[in-house]
Amino acid sequence: MSHLPLRAAIAGCEPYGAPELVVPARLNVNENPYSPSEAVARDIAEAVYAAALGANRYPERDFPRLRAALADYLAVESGVRLAPAQVWAANGSNEVMLHILQAFGGPGRVLVSADPTYSMYPEYARDTNTGYRTVARRPDFTVDVDALLDVARAEEAAVVVLASPNNPTGTALPASDVSRIASGLRGAGPHGADCVLVIDEAYAEFRRDGVASALELLDEHRNLAVSRTMSKAFAMAGLRLGYLAAAHDIVDALRIVRLPYHLSAITQAAALAALGHRDALMSQIAELREARDELADWLEEVGFDVVTSDANFILFGHLPNRHEIWAQLVDRGVLIREVGPPGYLRVSVGTARENRMFRHALLEVTDG
Amino acid sequence: MSHLPLRAAIAGCEPYGAPELVVPARLNVNENPYSPSEAVARDIAEAVYAAALGANRYPERDFPRLRAALADYLAVESGVRLAPAQVWAANGSNEVMLHILQAFGGPGRVLVSADPTYSMYPEYARDTNTGYRTVARRPDFTVDVDALLDVARAEEAAVVVLASPNNPTGTALPASDVSRIASGLRGAGPHGADCVLVIDEAYAEFRRDGVASALELLDEHRNLAVSRTMSKAFAMAGLRLGYLAAAHDIVDALRIVRLPYHLSAITQAAALAALGHRDALMSQIAELREARDELADWLEEVGFDVVTSDANFILFGHLPNRHEIWAQLVDRGVLIREVGPPGYLRVSVGTARENRMFRHALLEVTDG
Repeated sequence: MSHLPLRAAIAGCEPYGAPELVVPARLNVNENPYSPSEAVARDIAEAVYAAALGANRYPERDFPRLRAALADYLAVESGVRLAPAQVWAANGSNEVMLHILQAFGGPGRVLVSADPTYSMYPEYARDTNTGYRTVARRPDFTVDVDALLDVARAEEAAVVVLASPNNPTGTALPASDVSRIASGLRGAGPHGADCVLVIDEAYAEFRRDGVASALELLDEHRNLAVSRTMSKAFAMAGLRLGYLAAAHDIVDALRIVRLPYHLSAITQAAALAALGHRDALMSQIAELREARDELADWLEEVGFDVVTSDANFILFGHLPNRHEIWAQLVDRGVLIREVGPPGYLRVSVGTARENRMFRHALLEVTDG
Repeated sequence: MSHLPLRAAIAGCEPYGAPELVVPARLNVNENPYSPSEAVARDIAEAVYAAALGANRYPERDFPRLRAALADYLAVESGVRLAPAQVWAANGSNEVMLHILQAFGGPGRVLVSADPTYSMYPEYARDTNTGYRTVARRPDFTVDVDALLDVARAEEAAVVVLASPNNPTGTALPASDVSRIASGLRGAGPHGADCVLVIDEAYAEFRRDGVASALELLDEHRNLAVSRTMSKAFAMAGLRLGYLAAAHDIVDALRIVRLPYHLSAITQAAALAALGHRDALMSQIAELREARDELADWLEEVGFDVVTSDANFILFGHLPNRHEIWAQLVDRGVLIREVGPPGYLRVSVGTARENRMFRHALLEVTDG
């Protein structure tokens, strides 16, 4: 494509994405292994039928009903009651992050995160012409708050994004750290503005008892935003519905840069129908958390280093030859993810059968 | 929001969007006035039911079946047979344009168009930190090809976008002009690369007999791309499915900057189901074209200046007090669009009943 005017930053880049292989145990992209029930699918189909009959018209641009339903869900899940105007949504939480960086990032602006972390963050930065800097997490993958604040302040960062629980390590941020970081970023952004702190809580529903959500801190910090998704706990990765909770004025800034009608009437209807089944879905989460803890215990028992996880996946090591292990697992019908620091692999928590397949295959390929 | 690090380019901007008023005749955003049939809605609901049962998994990232179905549709509609790999899709053609500018635009790059035209183009540029320049259309709203090429070359434009039929004027570009422009932009982009020419054919299905689609020229011009949408002719504005046809390498560049899984499994399923009804929908288009020609004739008869339209809307003038006329029409339950050059208003072609309401109300408020 040498004749095309490709931006220098993307020349030679490959499209992002894990291998899309069809294998018996797909434990590579942190999906919820449980299919939505027929009752959920039926309600979605009915809602979409009604939406389709009116689909010659553009959807509601600001989707007030969906934002209210998401606020209701968050109140039940975390005990934090927000106004619908404090909630934003888009096609996946990655579009939410795109909106954040279109509003607050851009040329001359910097996004800061803490490595190792979600591999899309540098892509969001690249695609919005935002600079990207990281600080290293500690050996146990917790965030060094002072080091992070030093870098963010030195860079006059516009945005700091921290995943909690972090991907691919599963590490949650203590509420006290979130508070210190948010306070420390006040007035630390470009030209003395606040730096916006985004806590990416894609996996928050899987956190252990006693681990707080950053939602509880929204009231205290005007520069804090919390992103969530229906992809994981809600078993709706195929729906692509990410959302964000923050102060009104942060949401209002995102409304300026969102493409009009970015959320289709079909998506709005399907998401509303799925949210109607939150109780059934939330009981599934408890099962997955148990399965995660069991799998982590087993991995430790058979001798692996296991990173404590508040998510629906586990990072484990050390595997000096991780690529070979990964490939041999694929040969045995088990697809996990080659990601994270050298010597580690990440496995998503699957069904009981998938987890058994994984354990069996892992023992085989590591001569355990 | 003064404490937030808003980018200077968007500070003080309002979210884009026409007023969302509920009135008997909504003729303001060029929607198709005909609801999808129950048969279409049922097929969409069934497809979405199946997709919802597997929605715990991420959707196909590169949606090969949908791209093949869109290629099939274009072959029937325009007689041009493309490979699925030459087709791209996103959540509305505005996301397609975002991908174009994320790949080829950006800081130091320029997008060129011909005014008056679609009011989102400068927003795409702003949201991607791309410069935006326009040349004036001639008094009859056709494109001055030499003036356009002069500006594009002087700016070393990365992308030129031209709507054909143009919004809000309805003016189509002759194939000979498209060819001259595409040829003239070869090697005229940044650092001697080609400038990419995007012909925005959102309204192409409504063009009059004998007016060519730029799809017919794709073979001859490696720097040409044609964007389309299911929002208008397909009566699927609520689905948000825009697409683009171009050479493989242009599509490959968009794949680098698209957010992974940008097109949900629900959207893919619904779009495929709707495309299965293309024959029924295409017969409706013939009716709308006739209604457009009748409405244009009537507007001329009663004394308005009417811009020849190849779209499903009509720009008419001169109305020295257009805002008052617009507001008085709203009072009478008829919502049209205050857009385009001073003294003009734009009306979408509606159902027979809506068009009658519009004619009646317009005569009343203009004392015709």
